[in-house]
Amino acid sequence: MLYLIGLGLSHESDITVRGLEVVKRCKRVYLEAYTSILMTADQSSLEKFYGREVILADRELVEGGSDEILAGAEIDNEGENDVAFLVVGDPFGATTHTDLVIRARELGIKVETIHNASVMNAVGACGLQLYQFGQTISLVFFTDSWKPDSFYNKIMENRKIGLHTLILLDIKVKEQSIENMARGRLIYEPPRYMDISTACSQLIEIEESRQEQAYTENTPVVAVSRLGSPTQTFKAGTLKELVDYDSGEPLHTLVMLGRQVHDLELEYLYQFVENKQNFKLMVEQDQEFFKPPPYVPPVEELDD
Amino acid sequence: MLYLIGLGLSHESDITVRGLEVVKRCKRVYLEAYTSILMTADQSSLEKFYGREVILADRELVEGGSDEILAGAEIDNEGENDVAFLVVGDPFGATTHTDLVIRARELGIKVETIHNASVMNAVGACGLQLYQFGQTISLVFFTDSWKPDSFYNKIMENRKIGLHTLILLDIKVKEQSIENMARGRLIYEPPRYMDISTACSQLIEIEESRQEQAYTENTPVVAVSRLGSPTQTFKAGTLKELVDYDSGEPLHTLVMLGRQVHDLELEYLYQFVENKQNFKLMVEQDQEFFKPPPYVPPVEELDD
Repeated sequence: MLYLIGLGLSHESDITVRGLEVVKRCKRVYLEAYTSILMTADQSSLEKFYGREVILADRELVEGGSDEILAGAEIDNEGENDVAFLVVGDPFGATTHTDLVIRARELGIKVETIHNASVMNAVGACGLQLYQFGQTISLVFFTDSWKPDSFYNKIMENRKIGLHTLILLDIKVKEQSIENMARGRLIYEPPRYMDISTACSQLIEIEESRQEQAYTENTPVVAVSRLGSPTQTFKAGTLKELVDYDSGEPLHTLVMLGRQVHDLELEYLYQFVENKQNFKLMVEQDQEFFKPPPYVPPVEELDD
Repeated sequence: MLYLIGLGLSHESDITVRGLEVVKRCKRVYLEAYTSILMTADQSSLEKFYGREVILADRELVEGGSDEILAGAEIDNEGENDVAFLVVGDPFGATTHTDLVIRARELGIKVETIHNASVMNAVGACGLQLYQFGQTISLVFFTDSWKPDSFYNKIMENRKIGLHTLILLDIKVKEQSIENMARGRLIYEPPRYMDISTACSQLIEIEESRQEQAYTENTPVVAVSRLGSPTQTFKAGTLKELVDYDSGEPLHTLVMLGRQVHDLELEYLYQFVENKQNFKLMVEQDQEFFKPPPYVPPVEELDD
């Protein structure tokens, strides 16, 4: 049996009681360590909390060596060959884990998932209603020569139909420099986590070059920092305002508002703004974008 | 302090370790009992698991009497007056809990959320990628005279831009009949949970009356039953096919596919279909809807 176990967002103790029971009795326990991080825990604190060894699984091991992870798990010996694969958030947040499940099934290994909170649902804590979110986009670190902007059309699509957009910010863990990669040296750069200021700057940069007004520098956004951790912080403002926001330690996520902002959502956001009147004005102005055309009665009715 | 604590989807032990610690030490513990249910637990099994009393909170208590829930929680006496409010799934799945947070803050009560899995993120277990979902819709039980169809335009909007749609199915808990309500009798109907067959029938009924082809009876959907429970089941097919599907015990959720179905998503869904070739054909046919128009080179280029 292969168990995919979500770890939630921050603490060692964010694992579920059921998840912890399974972790304690599995033969091997892997911690997926490249799509996200736990904010207040690491490998050694998890090992202490679980009372057992935890093996770090980097991208090479998961994508190249999934058979190593799964070895022996097909032998059903009262569960004593079971393998646990721990994922920060929920296991189905990243495509890479779907691959692992498909491979396990090919090998005749049963798979069970123990779900947990992830940014995809916990972001509701910012006060914006989850059912009003459109497709999720990812924003990667720009370089001088590489500024991928396919997210721009997706934001446009969401906002044309009034929806909020969850923007996942780039995490670079265990990345090689181009030089080290070219020379085949397994030397890794320090981890980098995109902050709110960088995200807002990059979004404005793309709007300035595209100029299709999917959004503007005055579009309201909510900065979500360290979601689910003891220092969780929300900050609402315009893109331009949040370029100057010091969002502190990682991890960060950004939400761009859509046109359909309900009164209850707005009321909730007020606690995260500097100037309530100004924020209200910015939201109202932004709602003018992509508004459906005003109703014009059919000609027949006018003729009556 | 008010703790909002997600219970996850199914088992008593789906609560997080941190959530359980808080539940054990709070002064009063309320269980929100009207927006969803835990599939393999109830009030008494939770009380046994927690080793303490749990108070059921119905809609009247939460929406009319939130001050009763919050009473005393503002007194910071080393946590001994803390109140826990337990919610199936994650606390920010339903608007009603946002209200409770706003009321708590007005009363000067600190609020902490302990997140958990909800259908909004765990639905990723069906193999469709979460970032490809559009806005979420709710489908209520139709009556002879009341068939609300505002969801139809939302599905259309999602599918026009290629996105999947999560369809939450109606739950009727502690509802009064019209006669009992009129006579002021507090007699409640047995709980009802919409199944997959009813959902598919209602969706087809609305398409037949609207005929705008937001979807057709041949549009592929995935039935998600008892997500996160030991009897969790997925079934993929067309709307018409799943009208005849016996989805078994509640709870159920439906996902309607969008045009952007990746190969990996499709490969994953094959394990849930009767006839792989037929399903593939239905997906391909359905992808013809809302396709962007084919690229036509500008006239200048043709003149060259």
